[in-house]
Amino acid sequence: MLLVAPQDSAISERLGEELDQVQKLFAQELSSSLDCVNDLVTHIEQYRGKMLRPTLVLVTAMATSSDGAKVTHAHQQLAAVVEMVHMATLVHDDVLDEAAVRRGGRTVNGLRGNEAAVMLGDYLISHAYHLCSHMDSPLASRVVSASTNQVCAGELHQLANRENWELDQETYYQIIRDKTACLCGTCCSLAALFNDLSADVADEMYIYGEKLGLAFQIIDDVLDLTGSEDTVGKTLGLDLRKGKLTLPLIYLLQQVDGDTGQELRVLLESSRESDSTIARIRELIDKHDAVAYATNAAQGLVDRAKQSLGSLPQSPAHDLLSQMANAVLTRKF
Amino acid sequence: MLLVAPQDSAISERLGEELDQVQKLFAQELSSSLDCVNDLVTHIEQYRGKMLRPTLVLVTAMATSSDGAKVTHAHQQLAAVVEMVHMATLVHDDVLDEAAVRRGGRTVNGLRGNEAAVMLGDYLISHAYHLCSHMDSPLASRVVSASTNQVCAGELHQLANRENWELDQETYYQIIRDKTACLCGTCCSLAALFNDLSADVADEMYIYGEKLGLAFQIIDDVLDLTGSEDTVGKTLGLDLRKGKLTLPLIYLLQQVDGDTGQELRVLLESSRESDSTIARIRELIDKHDAVAYATNAAQGLVDRAKQSLGSLPQSPAHDLLSQMANAVLTRKF
Repeated sequence: MLLVAPQDSAISERLGEELDQVQKLFAQELSSSLDCVNDLVTHIEQYRGKMLRPTLVLVTAMATSSDGAKVTHAHQQLAAVVEMVHMATLVHDDVLDEAAVRRGGRTVNGLRGNEAAVMLGDYLISHAYHLCSHMDSPLASRVVSASTNQVCAGELHQLANRENWELDQETYYQIIRDKTACLCGTCCSLAALFNDLSADVADEMYIYGEKLGLAFQIIDDVLDLTGSEDTVGKTLGLDLRKGKLTLPLIYLLQQVDGDTGQELRVLLESSRESDSTIARIRELIDKHDAVAYATNAAQGLVDRAKQSLGSLPQSPAHDLLSQMANAVLTRKF
Repeated sequence: MLLVAPQDSAISERLGEELDQVQKLFAQELSSSLDCVNDLVTHIEQYRGKMLRPTLVLVTAMATSSDGAKVTHAHQQLAAVVEMVHMATLVHDDVLDEAAVRRGGRTVNGLRGNEAAVMLGDYLISHAYHLCSHMDSPLASRVVSASTNQVCAGELHQLANRENWELDQETYYQIIRDKTACLCGTCCSLAALFNDLSADVADEMYIYGEKLGLAFQIIDDVLDLTGSEDTVGKTLGLDLRKGKLTLPLIYLLQQVDGDTGQELRVLLESSRESDSTIARIRELIDKHDAVAYATNAAQGLVDRAKQSLGSLPQSPAHDLLSQMANAVLTRKF
């Protein structure tokens, strides 16, 4: 399900058609002469989700085009590239650490174990750069690879802060800016540059994408703590189990002191996987309005994202960019 | 230790200087503002091995240059890129499948578990493409990413053939061509193209690199079966344990029939990790001259590689390319 259902039916239809084109480029680029590779590629089509990144490219392309609706082939290619990069990170996120393997005993059938996940992710990354390198301008390769450098650094930074209960907000924001928001910003700035817009407008579009990406990640982290698994459609509470502090918990740890602070640290340190711990943490989160705090921060970022749209002419695509920023906050999945 | 110690002292010194330059570009590209990232990057410097791929780039650059010794900045960049790609595959090869984790109980300390290995490998890949995208010509990005597409497909193909005791030689050659030889061929053909040589010469240099790469992989596979761990410097017998058939075993399975064939298949299927099985397989390999068969195949490939050097003018660098091809056969590590 896409992040937004556009209110304007013409743009809704248009976006659907463009996303279909992107899907075609995606499948075409990944197609192999080896059946075993095609089987795995088909297998990951189940990962297709909200299409946030390609949608950012396409809608920014429309909003910054001369007629307010045009999407070029370069935009379609870029949209396929960023979705491939994103899929690779999803596939690589599935690789389990040893603790998780020992503990969960999750069965990953046959060839779809860790090694296949690593190689398939690499296959996606390689094809993303390959598609990118065949675009007319070398700009895409340069900007996309600079962005993925930042994504990887962010992931490593996050990993280095596992079980760091002293993680501060500044570091949290740096991590989510690197691992999530930067690529969203790149989607929007490159889409504007492909339409020959000025560097200033491209910078504003970067800010739009980056702030939207930050808000998106904060809400993702909130949903992991408080969402319903049926609605979100994936296992929740994983951040906590992995010792990954996110904004509501960072705020909570700052709020509680004395016995409760002590209790919370002991729970995190020693039994963060038990249902009773998770229930108790949710109770404290409720009591201290930690979700409201995080949602409020996300709201501020969405407002800032929308401000960056000020320089664009009015158009249904412009409206859709606003609507997307709002949808980041209200989404339940 | 490098694959070859050049006999000519001038070129030996020259190559050493160029490799130092490549090392500098490598470190510069990977350097981060985050300490946790730099720690991991430093950690992988221990992976530096024979420098086969950068050496192929540099020596081909010299052998195809107008004065028989020149290396351009583009060649140095390419050498750093291919070493980064190779390092990424080494780091990703370290990711264990679940069986291996359960069985071996290997301790990977702290953050250096599977997840860190995946992310660090991704960081290397991303920086390889980033460095590549900043080269003057878009050719490097296009050719290198086409080559890594093939590497990843080869790795997936190999994974899909785990425990396939019917693997034939044709498929084995296809796998090692994709996963190893293609990148070696690319090192040589791109190095020639950067010197503005004709497509015909570049094709011949591709063949040189590819055949050398095939021979290199066959000898690697032989060493995994019969080498001494002290000399090779890594755990051996891994291919067998992972159910990866290589040329000596494929040949052996074709040679033995009746009771011995049956015995061998049972050993592979049920107890390929026990020392007694490995000893018995080594005995059968000796009896049927399976190592000699594989080494002979590698010799044929090395001869073919050297034939491709025919169009190059005589020079110490030309001699070194021949010497490298020979060294692939005689190496003990």
